[in-house]
Amino acid sequence: MAEQFGFKVLATDGKARRGEVSMPRGTIRTPAFMPVGTAGTVKAMYLDQVRALGSDIILGNTYHLMLRPGAERVARLGGLHEFARWPHPILTDSGGFQVMSLAKLRKLNENGVTFRSHIDGAAYEMSPERSIEIQGLLGSDIQMQLDECVALPGEEKDIERAMELSLRWAERCKTAFGDQPGRAMFGIVQGGDKRHLRVRSAQALKAMELKGYAVGGLAVGEPQAVMLDMLEATCPELPADKPRYLMGVGTPDDILKSVARGIDMFDCVMPTRAGRHGLAYTRRGKVNLRNARHADDPRPLDEESNCPAARDYSRAYLHHLVRSQEALGAMLLTWNNLAYYQSLMGQIRDAIEAGAFVERAALISQEWARGDIPAL
Amino acid sequence: MAEQFGFKVLATDGKARRGEVSMPRGTIRTPAFMPVGTAGTVKAMYLDQVRALGSDIILGNTYHLMLRPGAERVARLGGLHEFARWPHPILTDSGGFQVMSLAKLRKLNENGVTFRSHIDGAAYEMSPERSIEIQGLLGSDIQMQLDECVALPGEEKDIERAMELSLRWAERCKTAFGDQPGRAMFGIVQGGDKRHLRVRSAQALKAMELKGYAVGGLAVGEPQAVMLDMLEATCPELPADKPRYLMGVGTPDDILKSVARGIDMFDCVMPTRAGRHGLAYTRRGKVNLRNARHADDPRPLDEESNCPAARDYSRAYLHHLVRSQEALGAMLLTWNNLAYYQSLMGQIRDAIEAGAFVERAALISQEWARGDIPAL
Repeated sequence: MAEQFGFKVLATDGKARRGEVSMPRGTIRTPAFMPVGTAGTVKAMYLDQVRALGSDIILGNTYHLMLRPGAERVARLGGLHEFARWPHPILTDSGGFQVMSLAKLRKLNENGVTFRSHIDGAAYEMSPERSIEIQGLLGSDIQMQLDECVALPGEEKDIERAMELSLRWAERCKTAFGDQPGRAMFGIVQGGDKRHLRVRSAQALKAMELKGYAVGGLAVGEPQAVMLDMLEATCPELPADKPRYLMGVGTPDDILKSVARGIDMFDCVMPTRAGRHGLAYTRRGKVNLRNARHADDPRPLDEESNCPAARDYSRAYLHHLVRSQEALGAMLLTWNNLAYYQSLMGQIRDAIEAGAFVERAALISQEWARGDIPAL
Repeated sequence: MAEQFGFKVLATDGKARRGEVSMPRGTIRTPAFMPVGTAGTVKAMYLDQVRALGSDIILGNTYHLMLRPGAERVARLGGLHEFARWPHPILTDSGGFQVMSLAKLRKLNENGVTFRSHIDGAAYEMSPERSIEIQGLLGSDIQMQLDECVALPGEEKDIERAMELSLRWAERCKTAFGDQPGRAMFGIVQGGDKRHLRVRSAQALKAMELKGYAVGGLAVGEPQAVMLDMLEATCPELPADKPRYLMGVGTPDDILKSVARGIDMFDCVMPTRAGRHGLAYTRRGKVNLRNARHADDPRPLDEESNCPAARDYSRAYLHHLVRSQEALGAMLLTWNNLAYYQSLMGQIRDAIEAGAFVERAALISQEWARGDIPAL
């Protein structure tokens, strides 16, 4: 295991990069998908399963964990790795995004944000320094700066103000994080759907010489083409020798197209959330198990999959579990979905190494376009 | 594997019996606990886990399965074993108990019962013949007669009428079941809390020469002493060479005391339901993980357990999962609870074989009475 946090690019294919993020707790093969473990658990999964699917890192949500069970409590219990029994790398977000989307009575100023918990109404303050302190208490390996993320579409002056504020907060987070050789603090590029603001944000963050860079404020309602355009404007401004993380993205197609533009890391609730709503990701696109067409279908989701959830259980059984709101339905579909996402990442990594990313991406897309196997 | 359904007593210790129920799909070591798989799934568990805990048989609920996904559909899909991926023995109840507790607009007469589904209001008829037909469609290895179960306390004339009706239905079920060498149809002793009615019911069923006998209509609100008194009246009237199944029972203490009175098989939702409500069964009694005393406790539920759920996760983490209503909380506590129940059954079987049942039961009870480990 590496003693210091580091990143190296092992191969490139066009703008797509095959790399490794290394740190004392392990190595992340990139492009990487990070399953979301909001409250110290990847919903409806044993973490042993998550690991066995090829997950090198999971994400924890600072907002949820600071409210319950509380960052100081997690620290007393030995940190999030020990608490949740995940000894491998963990990335935590800053908490800012969910303060904005979930908390009540939010007030934001230069210093930070005050809010009330959506669980019990308790008052909290979150500054750049407190966000880093909390992420340190959790024991996070990759910590994110506090930023302000503006919904799209938005007014340019609001987007610019939030981007500039996020840059000042990045400086404060860098200072608060200090010198921790085995861990990293990533800055977050903001700038909404404005190329010139994205460029200015990326250049300013690059000048701070951080250990990694995220692209934030995307996948917040804008068309995919806008997101990809922002990546095309942003990635060339970021240093080539540092990892690039696209936050909260996305669909398998988003991932494929973002890798093609130079992104290394992803996280998204889609595979886990969809699994709790009867939706399965497969080689041949998304399958809605609630649909009556599956009620009498003895075939599995994907007989060629290595995942037991995809290969061994009939669609009829999965349909029954989903319709009956049985826990096992969410357990099996989440398992299937994370297996699919991690298998997609493995294919992407192999293709980049082989210098065949464009061809492989085209084949993968063609298979999605074929759609699900015909109904019986 | 046995070609024919059979039962043999391997050892006795007082009235406690160590036996084996054998059939083409496998052998059930008795005394046995049957996890409840209501709708073709033991809630919040993979069936592989249920098996690995030492479960030789699970129970399916005919009422739930006939409504959804439907008995004919399960039959088309290869039967319940294939549908749920459980190739081992399955016992199904008759559906009658849940018609009475869950269905709407129930009307009971000599022929059977008509009712409407609690799910969608659809009308159904259930006769003794239809119950056996449905259980056959499901592919059940041990099928139960349709009976009428009266709530306690009840009027003697109602209890007697229901008992007599249940005897007539037992004859009809026996005829409907016919000759199926690899499977069994069990009769059900009724008679409420009246010893003489229990004796009359048991004697009449014995005369029918069935392959097994259940004791029904207990654990429906009466004190434990009444239940045990009914077992003392009933078991001596049943043939010694046939298995005896106490339906819907019970707590670990109920099981210990019922084994001492000659019962061989049990089923109960307690371990699975409790697991979804934050309650853990342990060597040292029941533990409520919702309780704030566990919030900072790094100790596992039971460091001496072989079950990872009991041994490897901190009480603080389990408390957090329960409070956060995370699926993993139900998954881990159900796992712990079924592990505890099956370990209890294993201890009971070993003790009977060793001729030390009374002593072992006393030790087990003493350990429950010690209560949980002191709070930190």
